[in-house]
Amino acid sequence: MSTTPKTGQEMDAYTVNVIKGLIMDATRKANSGHPGGAMSSADYAYILFKEFLSFDPDNPNWWNRDRFVLSAGHESMLLYSLLTLNGYLSIKDLMEFRQFESKTPGHPEHDQTPGVEATTGPLGQGFAMAGGMAVAETFLRHKLGQDITNHYTYVLVSDGDLQEPVALGSAALFGQWGLGRLIAYYDSNKIQLAGPTKRADCSDTKKLFESLCWQVIEIDGHDHEAIRTAIREARAETDRPTLIIGHTTMAKGSATLEGSEKTHGSPMSPEEIVATKNKLGLPADESFFLPEDVIAHFRQRFPLLSDRSGQWSEELAAKQARDASFAALWEAIHTPASKRNIQWPDFEPGTNLATRKAFGACLNGLIDQFPNLMGGSADLDPSNQTVHFRETTGIFGKDNPLGRSFSFGVREFPMGVILNGIALHGGIIPFGATFLVFSDYERNAIRMSALQNLPVLHVFTHDSFFVGEDGPTHQPVEHVSSLRLIPNLLTLRPGDAWESAACFDVAMKQETRPSVLIFTRQGLPVMDPATHPHIREGVGKGGYILEDPTDGKPEIILLASGSEVHLAVGAARALPDAKIRVVSMPCMELFDEQDAAYRESVLPKTVRKRMAVEAGSPDIWYKYVGLDGEVIGMNHFGASAPAEVLKKVYGFTVDHIVERLRETWLK
Amino acid sequence: MSTTPKTGQEMDAYTVNVIKGLIMDATRKANSGHPGGAMSSADYAYILFKEFLSFDPDNPNWWNRDRFVLSAGHESMLLYSLLTLNGYLSIKDLMEFRQFESKTPGHPEHDQTPGVEATTGPLGQGFAMAGGMAVAETFLRHKLGQDITNHYTYVLVSDGDLQEPVALGSAALFGQWGLGRLIAYYDSNKIQLAGPTKRADCSDTKKLFESLCWQVIEIDGHDHEAIRTAIREARAETDRPTLIIGHTTMAKGSATLEGSEKTHGSPMSPEEIVATKNKLGLPADESFFLPEDVIAHFRQRFPLLSDRSGQWSEELAAKQARDASFAALWEAIHTPASKRNIQWPDFEPGTNLATRKAFGACLNGLIDQFPNLMGGSADLDPSNQTVHFRETTGIFGKDNPLGRSFSFGVREFPMGVILNGIALHGGIIPFGATFLVFSDYERNAIRMSALQNLPVLHVFTHDSFFVGEDGPTHQPVEHVSSLRLIPNLLTLRPGDAWESAACFDVAMKQETRPSVLIFTRQGLPVMDPATHPHIREGVGKGGYILEDPTDGKPEIILLASGSEVHLAVGAARALPDAKIRVVSMPCMELFDEQDAAYRESVLPKTVRKRMAVEAGSPDIWYKYVGLDGEVIGMNHFGASAPAEVLKKVYGFTVDHIVERLRETWLK
Repeated sequence: MSTTPKTGQEMDAYTVNVIKGLIMDATRKANSGHPGGAMSSADYAYILFKEFLSFDPDNPNWWNRDRFVLSAGHESMLLYSLLTLNGYLSIKDLMEFRQFESKTPGHPEHDQTPGVEATTGPLGQGFAMAGGMAVAETFLRHKLGQDITNHYTYVLVSDGDLQEPVALGSAALFGQWGLGRLIAYYDSNKIQLAGPTKRADCSDTKKLFESLCWQVIEIDGHDHEAIRTAIREARAETDRPTLIIGHTTMAKGSATLEGSEKTHGSPMSPEEIVATKNKLGLPADESFFLPEDVIAHFRQRFPLLSDRSGQWSEELAAKQARDASFAALWEAIHTPASKRNIQWPDFEPGTNLATRKAFGACLNGLIDQFPNLMGGSADLDPSNQTVHFRETTGIFGKDNPLGRSFSFGVREFPMGVILNGIALHGGIIPFGATFLVFSDYERNAIRMSALQNLPVLHVFTHDSFFVGEDGPTHQPVEHVSSLRLIPNLLTLRPGDAWESAACFDVAMKQETRPSVLIFTRQGLPVMDPATHPHIREGVGKGGYILEDPTDGKPEIILLASGSEVHLAVGAARALPDAKIRVVSMPCMELFDEQDAAYRESVLPKTVRKRMAVEAGSPDIWYKYVGLDGEVIGMNHFGASAPAEVLKKVYGFTVDHIVERLRETWLK
Repeated sequence: MSTTPKTGQEMDAYTVNVIKGLIMDATRKANSGHPGGAMSSADYAYILFKEFLSFDPDNPNWWNRDRFVLSAGHESMLLYSLLTLNGYLSIKDLMEFRQFESKTPGHPEHDQTPGVEATTGPLGQGFAMAGGMAVAETFLRHKLGQDITNHYTYVLVSDGDLQEPVALGSAALFGQWGLGRLIAYYDSNKIQLAGPTKRADCSDTKKLFESLCWQVIEIDGHDHEAIRTAIREARAETDRPTLIIGHTTMAKGSATLEGSEKTHGSPMSPEEIVATKNKLGLPADESFFLPEDVIAHFRQRFPLLSDRSGQWSEELAAKQARDASFAALWEAIHTPASKRNIQWPDFEPGTNLATRKAFGACLNGLIDQFPNLMGGSADLDPSNQTVHFRETTGIFGKDNPLGRSFSFGVREFPMGVILNGIALHGGIIPFGATFLVFSDYERNAIRMSALQNLPVLHVFTHDSFFVGEDGPTHQPVEHVSSLRLIPNLLTLRPGDAWESAACFDVAMKQETRPSVLIFTRQGLPVMDPATHPHIREGVGKGGYILEDPTDGKPEIILLASGSEVHLAVGAARALPDAKIRVVSMPCMELFDEQDAAYRESVLPKTVRKRMAVEAGSPDIWYKYVGLDGEVIGMNHFGASAPAEVLKKVYGFTVDHIVERLRETWLK
C-alpha cells in the first residue's frame, strides 16, 4: 500500500480509486450489481461532483441546486459513493446496498435516497428526464428570474442508454429546444452486458448528436484536465445542449478485467478485488475504505457551497418582500392544487359533446388559474383539443422560453418521460396528450410516473372502437384495463362532460400519483346536474349510483364507465320494472380505496345479478360482477368503419344491453 | 379538361394526377382520411410501382416479389390507388374506403387487402418492419440461393415516421447490418398533422442517417427523372441501406391548399376538389375517374413481370428436382411447426431449475430442428439464456448474412417490430428476448404481432418481484396480466421446466397468433412426470388439475400460475384434510377457449371457495375466483432486496397461503 498522496492531482486520482474500492466492496457484499460501468465513469463523475456541481451540503432539496441524473442507473454504486462523500449517505448505507428498505437500492430511486434526483434503470429514460428538468429550469429561470432559478442539469449516460430509441427521440427535442444548460456525459466504454457495442452499432455518435443540433465534445474520459475543460466548454454554450463523449475503459483500474463485459452485471471475485486494490494503492484487507483525508479533500468547496445557498435564501426572502408579483407567483407554484378551489366550466345538459371537447374546455379554463401548467401533444393538437392552449400560451423553445406549450412531434415515449423530468424538477404541473392507443408507446413512462409518485397528467383522447374509420391500429381495446393494472396510478374514464371536469379535478389534486385521463372522440349526451346532483362527489369516490329504483332496492346492477354509461342508463330506463341500479365507475382505483361500507352501499353483496358494459377488454370487470355476472365487452381488435356501424355490430347499444338483460335475468 | 396527353412523360404526369383524383374522391366520399401526404408522395410511389417494383400481376403472394411497405399508413389511399392500377383492387373497392369489411380500411391492413405487406398506421413501425423483411430476404437469399430469393424491400416514410424513436433505433440496426436492399423513401413535405415540422425538429436528416451508416440521396420528390436516378443508385448500393429524401410539397397539385396542414387529416372540400381537378386536367364532374389509357400505360411492364415470375416458378421446380438438400430445406421452411413432432429436452425431477434455464435448454434443442429459427436478445443474452444460441448460430450482419442470431443492442421496441417484419416476409420463425418489465417498451409491437396474426415468439425472463435486488424498476407487477388483455395473443407463464417446454411447444405450433413466453430468474422445483403425467396435455388446455383430493371432490380450489404453482401445491399438501384442488393455469387464453364441459370439470360451479395466487396484479383472477374468492397478489411495485427476503414480506410462501386459507375457510 502506498503512502497517502500529497498533491491535489494525486489526491484526485486517489479519491477516484477509493470510490472504485467502495464500488467493488458493495457489489461484492450484495453479491450482485454492476461494477464495470461504475468504474469507467468514476473519473468524470468525481470531477463533476467535487468541482462543478452546485448543491447545498445541508439540504439535498435546495431549490436551485444543479440536477445530476445517473441515467445508467445500474451504476448506482458510483452515485451512492459520491453521495457518501458529500455527506448525504453513510458507509453503513453502502454496506446495505441492495438490501430491503435501505437507502441504497439496486437502482437509484427518487424519494428513497437524498440526492437521487430520478429513479433510473430503465435505460434511456434518465437522459430524457434530465432534459425535462432542463426544460423546467429554463422556463422557471425566465419566469422567476435568474437570481432564483439558474442551474445546470447534468446526466450521465451509457452505451445502452444511447441505443434506446427514447434517448434519440428526446435528444432531437432537446436540440430543437436549445437547452444550453443540459450537459450530458456519455461514458463510451464500448462494452455492454452481452459484449462489445460494435456487435450492435456502427453509429458515429458525434455526427449523430450534431445532426440533432447538439454541441459535441470528445475527450479521454479518464483525463481529469480534459474533463474539466469539457465541462467548462459545455457550460459556456448557451444555445445548444452539450454531449461530452468520454472514451473510457470498462472497469478501468481493475487488475485483470479491464475491458471485459464480465464486469458489467456481476461483482468481481474476492481475488480480483484484492489484486485491484493492490494495483490502485488501496488497503487490500480493508472493506469500505474511506479515509478522512479523502473526505476532507472532496469537501473543500463545502463552505463556498453553503454560502451560495445561504445567499440564495436571503435573496428569495428579499425578492418576496420587494416584489409582490414575484411573491404571488412563488406562492402559486408552491401551493398544491389540492388546496385550491379550481374553477371548471359548465356544460349544457342534453347536448351532445365529446368528452375530449369537455377536456379542451377544462384545459382552457386552467390557463390563467395555473401559470405553471405546461403541456402539449405528440402532434395531435387538433384531435387532442390542445390548439387553444398552444395558441394562448405559446410554444416553448429557444426563442420563447416562457412558452408553456410543447410541440413534441410524433414522439409519445419522449413526451411521457420528459413530463416526468419536469415534474421531478418541481414548480410545474405537466401534461401530455396523444391517442389512447398510443399509450402503448409511452407505457413505461407512465409506470415511471407512478413509481416515482409524480402527479403527471397523461391525457388520452380517441377512446375505444368508437374512433371508427381509422381502424384497429387506432382503436384501443385492452388499453383502459391495462392502465388500471399499473400500481399507484389513477385511470379515469369519464362518462360525460361533467364527469370529465370532475375527473380532471381529481387528477389535478393528486400530490403523489399520476393520472390517466381518457376521453372520447365521439359526442356523448351531457347529463343534467339537476337530475344527477352528485356527479363531482361520486367521481371523487371512483364509482357511484347514478340511477336507482325508487325504493333504493335494486335487483339488478348495471355497471359502466365512460361512453357506455349513457347506454346503461338508457337500458335501465327501457326496463322500468326490472329494478335496475346503474353504477357509473369512472375510476376503479378510487372506488377500491373507499371503505367497505361505501362499497357495500353501491354494490350490495346480496345483489348478484350484475352486468358490466365497457367497450374494451372485459376481464377486469369480473372483480365487480363475479361468477354469476356478465360483461358486455370486446375481445377483438375492432375494424375500420363508421362508429355508428360498429356499435351495432359489436353490441354497444341500448337495445343490445336490454336484450342481454332479458335473456339473462328477465325471461 | 385537357385532351389526353401523348408522350410517356406526359402520361406519367397525367397518371399521377389521376391518382390524386382517386385520393381526393375516396377521402371525400368516406368523409375522413388523409389526402395531403398521399398527394405529396404520389410521384415517387407511382414511378416505383410502374417502373421498378417487381411483382406478379396474377399473384400478390409470389414468394420473390419486392416488398413495399407504406409506413405512413394514413396515406392508405395512395397505396390503394396503386393496387387498383396494378389490378389487385377495383374502383368499387376504392368507393368502399373506410367502410365495414371492405378491402380498403382506413389504414392498410395485412391479410385484408391483396398487395398490402404490413399493417401500418402506428408511425415508425412500418419502417422497422420493412427492415425486418430485408433481414429475412438477406438471410434467405444466402440460404436458398439468389435464384429463389432476391428482391428489394421498399418503404415509404413520412415526417412523423422519422420522428418516432423506434424508427431511429431501427435505422441504427439496419445500418449496422448493412441491408443494401432496403430502400427507404422519405417524403419530406415538412408538414404534419398539427403544423410545420420545424416546430418540433431542427434535425439534419441526411447527416443523421449517414451517422447511422446509411447511404443518403436528396432529390426533388416531384421530379420523375430524379426519382428514377435515385432508385437506381439505391439499388446499386449493396453494403448500406439507402434513404432517399424527397423534398416535396404537402398536397402537391391542390388548387389552394398546397403546403397546408389542413390537408393532413381531413378530406378536401367539394369546391377545392373541383378546382384541383380543373388544375390537374381531370374531369371535374367525374368521381373515381380512371381511364383505360392510364391503366394501359401503367401496365406496360405486366408481360415482363408475368414472365419473370413464371421463370422463377420453373427455376424453383427445377432446383427442387436437381438439388435434394435445397428441396428438403424448402420443404422444412414451408412446413408449419404445428405439423411437426418437436423434440424437447428432459429435466431432472426434484431439482431446482429456473424456467429461463429450461427455456435456454429448449431453445438450444431447436437449433438443428429448425434451420429457419432466428432470434436474439436486447443485450441481455446471458440473462435471457440465449448465449449458446448466439455462439452456435452466429450473429447476423453484413459479414455473416447466414447468422441466425441478432445482437439488437438495448432496443426492445425495434426488436419487437423487426420480428414482425421478419414474420411478415415468411420463411423464418423469429424470436426476441428481454426482461419482462421491458415488455412495456415494445408493447405496441406485441399488439401489432397479434393484430397481424403473426406467430412471433416474444420471450421474457426475469418475471415478478422474484427478480430481487435490481428493484422495482426491474420487477414486473402488472405486466403478465396486461399482456393477457391483448386480443389474439397467448400469454404463457409456466410453473416449472416441464411446463416451460410444453408452453414453448404451444407457442411454436401457433400459426396465426403470437405468444409471450414468461420465465423466472429464480430456480423452481422440477415436477416429476411420474406423479404429474398430464403436464403437456394440461398446458395445451391452458389450465388443468395438478393435484386433487383422492375422491376428486374438492371443497377448495387453489389456482396459480408460474412460480406460484409449487407454492399452491405445498399449501394443499400442508392441509391434507382440507380437500384442496390445485389448478395450474399457465395460459388463461387457452383455458377460456376450452369447451364449457372441460372448464366445468376443472372449476366446478358449485365450488366457490377459490383462491388464486400470483406474484402480480390480482384483478384479472377474479374472473375465476368470483366475489366469494380471494386473490393473493401484488398491488405495489416491489423493492430492491434479495428475493428470499421479499417473498416473506409479500406473502409468497407456503406458510402464508396456508394461513390465508385457514383464516378464510378453515377456522
